[in-house]
Amino acid sequence: MTAAAARPSPADSEHRPTIVIVGAVAAGASAATRARRMNEQARIILFEKDEHVSFANCGLPYYIGGEIEQRDKLLVAKPRMLRERFNLEVRTRCEVTAIDRAHRRVTVRDHQGGGTFTQPYDKLILAPGAAPIVPPVKGMDAANVFTLRNLQDTDRIKDFIARRPAGRAVVVGAGFIGLEMVEMFLRLKMRVSLVELQTQVLPPLDVEMARMVERELRRHEVDLRLGSGLQGFELERADGRDTVSHVVLDDGSRLAADVVIVGIGVRPNTQLAAEAGLRLGESGGIRVNEFLQTSDPDIYAAGDAVEYTHAVADLHMRVPLAGPANRSGRLAGEHAATGRCAPMPPVLGTAIVRVFDTVAAVTGCNERCVARLGGTVQRLYITANHHAGYYPGAQSMTLKLLYRPDDGKLLGAQIVGGEGVDKRIDVLATLIHLGGTVQDLTELDLAYAPPFGSAKDPLHMAGFAAANERDGLVQFVQPGVDLSTTQVVDMRTAAEMAKQPLVDAPHALHIPIDELRRRLGELDPGRPTVTVCASGLRSYIGARILMQHGFRNVADLTGGAAMRAHATNHEPTRT
Amino acid sequence: MTAAAARPSPADSEHRPTIVIVGAVAAGASAATRARRMNEQARIILFEKDEHVSFANCGLPYYIGGEIEQRDKLLVAKPRMLRERFNLEVRTRCEVTAIDRAHRRVTVRDHQGGGTFTQPYDKLILAPGAAPIVPPVKGMDAANVFTLRNLQDTDRIKDFIARRPAGRAVVVGAGFIGLEMVEMFLRLKMRVSLVELQTQVLPPLDVEMARMVERELRRHEVDLRLGSGLQGFELERADGRDTVSHVVLDDGSRLAADVVIVGIGVRPNTQLAAEAGLRLGESGGIRVNEFLQTSDPDIYAAGDAVEYTHAVADLHMRVPLAGPANRSGRLAGEHAATGRCAPMPPVLGTAIVRVFDTVAAVTGCNERCVARLGGTVQRLYITANHHAGYYPGAQSMTLKLLYRPDDGKLLGAQIVGGEGVDKRIDVLATLIHLGGTVQDLTELDLAYAPPFGSAKDPLHMAGFAAANERDGLVQFVQPGVDLSTTQVVDMRTAAEMAKQPLVDAPHALHIPIDELRRRLGELDPGRPTVTVCASGLRSYIGARILMQHGFRNVADLTGGAAMRAHATNHEPTRT
Repeated sequence: MTAAAARPSPADSEHRPTIVIVGAVAAGASAATRARRMNEQARIILFEKDEHVSFANCGLPYYIGGEIEQRDKLLVAKPRMLRERFNLEVRTRCEVTAIDRAHRRVTVRDHQGGGTFTQPYDKLILAPGAAPIVPPVKGMDAANVFTLRNLQDTDRIKDFIARRPAGRAVVVGAGFIGLEMVEMFLRLKMRVSLVELQTQVLPPLDVEMARMVERELRRHEVDLRLGSGLQGFELERADGRDTVSHVVLDDGSRLAADVVIVGIGVRPNTQLAAEAGLRLGESGGIRVNEFLQTSDPDIYAAGDAVEYTHAVADLHMRVPLAGPANRSGRLAGEHAATGRCAPMPPVLGTAIVRVFDTVAAVTGCNERCVARLGGTVQRLYITANHHAGYYPGAQSMTLKLLYRPDDGKLLGAQIVGGEGVDKRIDVLATLIHLGGTVQDLTELDLAYAPPFGSAKDPLHMAGFAAANERDGLVQFVQPGVDLSTTQVVDMRTAAEMAKQPLVDAPHALHIPIDELRRRLGELDPGRPTVTVCASGLRSYIGARILMQHGFRNVADLTGGAAMRAHATNHEPTRT
Repeated sequence: MTAAAARPSPADSEHRPTIVIVGAVAAGASAATRARRMNEQARIILFEKDEHVSFANCGLPYYIGGEIEQRDKLLVAKPRMLRERFNLEVRTRCEVTAIDRAHRRVTVRDHQGGGTFTQPYDKLILAPGAAPIVPPVKGMDAANVFTLRNLQDTDRIKDFIARRPAGRAVVVGAGFIGLEMVEMFLRLKMRVSLVELQTQVLPPLDVEMARMVERELRRHEVDLRLGSGLQGFELERADGRDTVSHVVLDDGSRLAADVVIVGIGVRPNTQLAAEAGLRLGESGGIRVNEFLQTSDPDIYAAGDAVEYTHAVADLHMRVPLAGPANRSGRLAGEHAATGRCAPMPPVLGTAIVRVFDTVAAVTGCNERCVARLGGTVQRLYITANHHAGYYPGAQSMTLKLLYRPDDGKLLGAQIVGGEGVDKRIDVLATLIHLGGTVQDLTELDLAYAPPFGSAKDPLHMAGFAAANERDGLVQFVQPGVDLSTTQVVDMRTAAEMAKQPLVDAPHALHIPIDELRRRLGELDPGRPTVTVCASGLRSYIGARILMQHGFRNVADLTGGAAMRAHATNHEPTRT
């Protein structure tokens, strides 16, 4: 064999390209395995700067809390399997430090063996993920302060807690990971404070929906500090290391802490891409086209470091979640291996979190997102059982829809409840993905048997309400509306009213729905009137009665007294 | 006031029409309440021949079995509430016996007060439901033989069982109600035989999927008699009444019985409509247009007595399920009250049933339905966990997709599993309703956190498999294929093979997937080759490897060894 033959010719390189992948967790591992299935001849090299590949990122809190008992379960695909089944070259503790686009090669620092080497590529896939945002306060490197992103963090936290059982935990940041860690610390019999700069937990949710999650946190005696910035740490020396004794908030309060978790968000790892001159997008993530190609078509990017196209709003956004990471990685791997793939589907930001017995989920646009969209947007709330009320164990859920009144297009949805929230959010995500309307919601032929749903599912009820509003059968007023100058008719029972008073409407007339027709004389048909009940079902029936009895201006308080209580409680609350 | 003014003029009648509704359960009650919300002035009269209105039909088995403890829970909307909240005239035990279309009036027999009267109508809505099919055998009127359709039946069964605890039950008919009754009888510590004329349980499911339900029944020691016709009953006298001692099957076997439930299907109550000359459809139900109008536009029909348009197949069919009944009733009520409504959405026949720890669900077309559709249809099977495997409690589900290979349009789906089956079938029903494709399935942005799903959901996996097949990346062979002349490569571990032998392929070569590349030499690339694993995931990877190593004709056994076992076991089995 001559030297020339040993060097791959351009044609060879096309059939046996070298695909180099930076990062080997969700997007990177998906890219590598899909590339292999597409191209058996390619040389596929995975560089991972950390020790572990393809681990279950989303499972880390549950392992810390002991719900997942075996650490081994977190290792989804081990290097050996990736080598044997997919013929991948897996190089852990190898950090790609530079991209030489002109010569199509990367510089790699080998943290294990030491030294630096270069690796040529035909196609390069960047899947470097994101890193926890570290606030600029002294003490972030203290022995008992942790961020949680990878298995190493996990091991350190678990080890630390094991040595300080039943202590006091302070969680900074009330996003998904923060809330999961709160639950896990409680599970470990620790006392927990949750600190959040915003005046609500779970920023992807609108504030009035987040209130229901906050209620659940308080029910479990979480010390909730909303609207509170992290001022700094009080440090002491323990075992020869700086250790935080107290977390200090910007209102001056001091929280005693045995362990501190900082989970205030992640920042995309874009340095490598930026230094190589690849284009970043408006959200700070790596900009890619529909085939996950960066501004250099031989370089792809996927996962938490990129920005995706949003399915509803006309914007690019980062969505550091496993679903889009796996999807984008898989497509990037296919395109790198074959030169073609289906376009990356736009993202909806669908997400879900369990917080004790409460489940909160979101898909599509929330209020901030529809504000950017512009145009008229309508919203409504429905509270309904997750399965037939006559079958034991029915749990209530509250669903918020955001839709365009002109064409009925569904823009977004949020649900807080218990069982069955995951099902409804997935149906709504599917409907939005396919461009469905609130009318479609009313028409869905969903599966019903008493243990699973209702003949009129919460989704149907939400669709009915929206379709009624679009058809002019009812007008909604929003939960936080000023009721001081309107005639308010509260159609609940006296017992319900005592349990959940109607906020800011002491002048409300109490006329239970079943007495309305015979007590119409007590009301002034000429005055603007708002009908109220617990959740909005009876008040809709009441509104229909009034509208047909000559009341000119009738509106139904969507979400009822319960949602009004949430919506009018906008102040950060200290427990 | 003059006599003329007291008689409603035609114009009055338009504003204050009399809407008469025949039947007051799901469709009838929905029609009445919607009509009222649309038209406060109308006179709305509900005639119900039985004692109870708006009861929870689907809850009856669960009340008999004691899962639902209070009978009162089954009464969803009581007459008093219908009167007070909706101003409806509810006339129970009043049977409409004739329709005089020329004079727009019905004849009503009052079973309570006695006698007969006529009631004029402006609009008439027929919601008479369906009645259990009664087989033509002697003894159907015996003291211990029951059908189950209404509260009266329920009370009789519950009362009878209470007096004969821990006895032997024979259930004839393995449809939804039959299976629910089997589970409830077992719950009551009875021994149960299940007799079904067809060679499978749950006829809406395809046979290989039904096999998984049958396995669950056997696991609970149900005496399963498939392919067995009911020959007759052996009767004896007890307490002065004929009582069945044995159920005799057409193969001559005799099953001792303390109680017999016959649930072999329902027949639409169309006599009233037929006698009035209203058109019936090809399926035997009352034919209606998209606004639920019969061949007489002043007469509507809704619920189990009508036939609906199928969403996928070009046919009309009866779907005696609560969802379509409520939907059609609601629309008929609206149109009767206002002269307009949205068109009735086509039905998918989405249904679900829990059978002990197994859940079976179906939506859209099954094999019989696609056979009527014509054209090329592809099908595949996926087995996957309902949530992340690393999180405790993951349960496996098997999903079957039927789709059109040319445009990828999803035609139908079936799932058998445990937790999470209801979610996936609802997403699939939504996707089919909106005309979605298998490519859409791959793109869904579903909610993922470890307790709820996987980053690659079973739905994604099914979509990937179908999209791969459409893209020519893989060919499928179906579970029941003749493997005798093909080269078969079994890629499982030895332990898996021992647990679930590959049916009818003793010549299969055993090459675990991770050894495939280095053992290619053991295979003949020129021979047609089928790859096999447990469920189809590894065998797909193996097929990709072989195809790229010069094997010309490679196919993947969809559903793997497990589905092959189900598909090749087509004989009725006696336990």
